[in-house]
Amino acid sequence: MDIELKLSETGKNLRSSLIRELLKYASIPGSISFGGGVPDPNTFPRHELAEIAKEVIEKEYAYTLQYNTTEGDDELVKQIAKLLERMYGITGIDRPNILFTTGSQQALDLLARVFLDKDSICIVEFPVYLGAASAFRMMFPQFITIPLQDDGMDVDYLERKLKELDSEGKIKNVKFIYTVPNFHNPAGVTMSLEKRKRLVELAEKYDLLVIEDDPYGMLRFEGEHLPALYKLAGPDRVVLLNTFSKILTPGLRIGMIIGRADIVRKATLAKQAADLCSPSLNQRIAARYLERYDLFEQLKPGIELYKRKKDVMMKALEEEFADIKGVHWVNPQGGLFTWLTLPDGFDTMDMFEIAKEKMIYYIPGQAFTIDDSVSTSMRLSFCLPPEEKIIEGVKRLKAVVVEYGKRKGLIG
Amino acid sequence: MDIELKLSETGKNLRSSLIRELLKYASIPGSISFGGGVPDPNTFPRHELAEIAKEVIEKEYAYTLQYNTTEGDDELVKQIAKLLERMYGITGIDRPNILFTTGSQQALDLLARVFLDKDSICIVEFPVYLGAASAFRMMFPQFITIPLQDDGMDVDYLERKLKELDSEGKIKNVKFIYTVPNFHNPAGVTMSLEKRKRLVELAEKYDLLVIEDDPYGMLRFEGEHLPALYKLAGPDRVVLLNTFSKILTPGLRIGMIIGRADIVRKATLAKQAADLCSPSLNQRIAARYLERYDLFEQLKPGIELYKRKKDVMMKALEEEFADIKGVHWVNPQGGLFTWLTLPDGFDTMDMFEIAKEKMIYYIPGQAFTIDDSVSTSMRLSFCLPPEEKIIEGVKRLKAVVVEYGKRKGLIG
Repeated sequence: MDIELKLSETGKNLRSSLIRELLKYASIPGSISFGGGVPDPNTFPRHELAEIAKEVIEKEYAYTLQYNTTEGDDELVKQIAKLLERMYGITGIDRPNILFTTGSQQALDLLARVFLDKDSICIVEFPVYLGAASAFRMMFPQFITIPLQDDGMDVDYLERKLKELDSEGKIKNVKFIYTVPNFHNPAGVTMSLEKRKRLVELAEKYDLLVIEDDPYGMLRFEGEHLPALYKLAGPDRVVLLNTFSKILTPGLRIGMIIGRADIVRKATLAKQAADLCSPSLNQRIAARYLERYDLFEQLKPGIELYKRKKDVMMKALEEEFADIKGVHWVNPQGGLFTWLTLPDGFDTMDMFEIAKEKMIYYIPGQAFTIDDSVSTSMRLSFCLPPEEKIIEGVKRLKAVVVEYGKRKGLIG
Repeated sequence: MDIELKLSETGKNLRSSLIRELLKYASIPGSISFGGGVPDPNTFPRHELAEIAKEVIEKEYAYTLQYNTTEGDDELVKQIAKLLERMYGITGIDRPNILFTTGSQQALDLLARVFLDKDSICIVEFPVYLGAASAFRMMFPQFITIPLQDDGMDVDYLERKLKELDSEGKIKNVKFIYTVPNFHNPAGVTMSLEKRKRLVELAEKYDLLVIEDDPYGMLRFEGEHLPALYKLAGPDRVVLLNTFSKILTPGLRIGMIIGRADIVRKATLAKQAADLCSPSLNQRIAARYLERYDLFEQLKPGIELYKRKKDVMMKALEEEFADIKGVHWVNPQGGLFTWLTLPDGFDTMDMFEIAKEKMIYYIPGQAFTIDDSVSTSMRLSFCLPPEEKIIEGVKRLKAVVVEYGKRKGLIG
C-alpha cells in the first residue's frame, strides 16, 4: 500500500524537528553539546519523588492507578493555586481555571486546535519557541513574527503590524499573540515591565488574547521578578501556560493551562478527544511533593548551579569572541539559554558541518524561524555540560566560527 | 472578550462526551451504575507497581525523571515484542514498529490527524466506540457506518458500500476501516474468523487500511482466541492499537500504535507536535513489571472476576427480561460490556430520566452513534459493581423498562 496516497494534509506536512535531528550527534563520545534544553538530572529530588511514588501507589491506588478526569487532579489544583499566589501574586485560581496537560507542548497543541483555522493569524516572536511553532503549524494558520530585542518583543513593530491588520480589516483574524516573556527560548531575553504594560494595552485596544508561556520564570539568577502578563492584564486577556519540566522534573510530563473558565473548558473538551486524560499517578506525585516540600527552597541549589554555569559561559564567550567584530550574545537573567549572533554573512546551519567535525553542538537559529530562513544566530544552552566542558566547548565554537568565517571570507 | 468570536471550527464544534455527563449521576449514594467501563481497582497489582516505581525513580532517575523520546521507552518495546508474540503470534516487531501513546485515545487522535481531511471517508462500526468517534470527528471527515451483528461487522453490507464507493469514484477517499474485533465496546460482540478473513480480503481488494483496536483481547472468559487482523493480513494492511488500561492499569496511560515503520513514523511526528513525549517514568514502570511478572498469570484472577460478574448479569437479565418480547442482549465471551436492545419504540436516552429516579445507570445507545440518533439499545458494564449490586441493578433496570414501556404504550 502506498501510504502517501492516504495521508491527510497534516500527515503530508509533518516533519521532524530540526533540533531532534541535530541532537543525534550530541551523544557521540567526546562531543560537547550546547544543544539540548534539558535540565540536569542531578537537580531532580529523586529520593523524595521515589518515596512519594511508592506511597501514593500503595495508599491511593484507587485514584493513582485508575483513569483520571480530563481536567486532572483536584489535589494538584490546590497546590498550584498556592504556588501561583506565591510566585506571581495571582489569586482566585480554582478548579475551573486549570487544565493539566502533557507538558506545555500539549497546552500549545490544545490551544492551537481550539483557536486556529487556516485563515487565522497567529502572532509569534522572532526567533520563536520551536515547540509552539510546530503545534500551531498543525492547524496551518498564517504567522506574523515580531522581532525580539534585548528587552523583549519589539512592541513598536507589533503596534505598526496591528494597525496595518486593522486597516486591512484583518484584525478579527488575529487569534492570539504568543510570547515567552521570561528568559526566552531560544533568545534568552526577558520582556521589560514597560513592554509588558504596552503589550497588555495593545491587546486591550485590539481585543486580542495573549498566550503567556512561562516555563522558566522561577529560574531567575539575578534581579527582580517582573509581573506576569496574566497578573497585569487579568484572565480576560491572558492565558498562562506553565510546566513542572524545568522546576521539578520533565519526567512527570505535567504542564498546565491557567485561564478563564470558558477557555479552559474548551481546551478540556479538546483534550478529551486528544487523549482522554493524563496519568493521575504523575499528578498526585507532584501534588504530594508540593504539599510536603517548599519548591522555592528546593529550587535554590539548581538555580545556583545554572547561574554558575551561565557565568562560566559568559566569561568564556567574552574571552573567545571579544576580538571578533559584530558578534554579540545575550546575558540571560535566568533560564537555560543564551543566543549568540554572528556578523552578517554567517549561516549557522551551513556552519554546523564544521561544528560536527569539531564535535561541538549548538542549535542553528534557522530552527527557530517560521519559514526556515537562514540565520546568523544560534542557541547555546549552558544547563547540562559541566563547567570545564563549557569552557572547552566555547573554545571549539570559536574555532568553528573562525574556520567558517575564513573559508567564506567573512573575517580577516 | 467574547471568546466565541475567536474559536476555530474545531473549537466551536467541541462538545462534552455524553458518557461523562451521564456518569456524574452514578456517584450519588445508593445508585447502581452499569455505566462506566473502568476496571476494578482491586485487580491492579499495586504492591508490585509501588515497589517498581520507587526503584526506577531511585536507580534510573536520569531516564525516568528526564524527557523521554517521542517514540517512547526502548525497554518497553522489548517487552511488548515478547507480549505480541505470545498473545497474537506476531513476530518481527521492533523499535520502528511501535509508538507509545497516552492511552489508545491518543493513538486514535494521532491516526486521525495523519490520515483524515474533510473530504476523507472513514468507515466505522455501528454502534461505534465513542472515543474513536470523538477523535476522528476532530478532523471533520465523512463517516460510513457498518452495522454490527452477533458475530461482528456485517461484511456483506461493507462489501456493498465499498462497491458503491468504488463505482462513484470515491474509494480513494476511504482512509481506513476502524474496528474493535474482540468484545466490542459497546456492543460486546466478537468478529468471527470467517468475517476477519473476509474483511482482510476486502481491504486487499480495495487497497484499504484497517485500524484494529484491541484493548480487551486478553480479557477472554471462554472459547479460543481468534487471530488478530494484523496477524491475518500483516502490517501492510493493518495498524494494531493496544493499551495497558484494561490489562494492567489505566493509571499509567500507556497505549500503543503497532504497524509499518512509515505509518508509525508519521504518527510519531504528529505526537512530537502534540505533546513531545509521554512520561518515561510510566513506561519504565510497565517495562519492569512485564520483565518480572507474567502478565498472563497476573491477569487470571481479574478475568475470573469479570467472568463471574458477567455470568451473574446474564442470569439476572434472563430472569428479569425473558418475559418481555423483543428484548435481546449479547452474551460476551470477554471484555467489560454487554449490549441490551429493547423493542422498537423504546428510546433509551428518553428513558434515562426514569433510570435516574430509580438510581440505575446505563449508557444509552445514542452515545455510540455518529449522528446522535435515537437508539433502542444500551451499554451495560458488569466490571465494577459487586455481584449483589448487579442483581439488584438488573431488577431496577427491569422496573425502568416496564414503567417507560407502559407509559409509552409499548408493552402491555
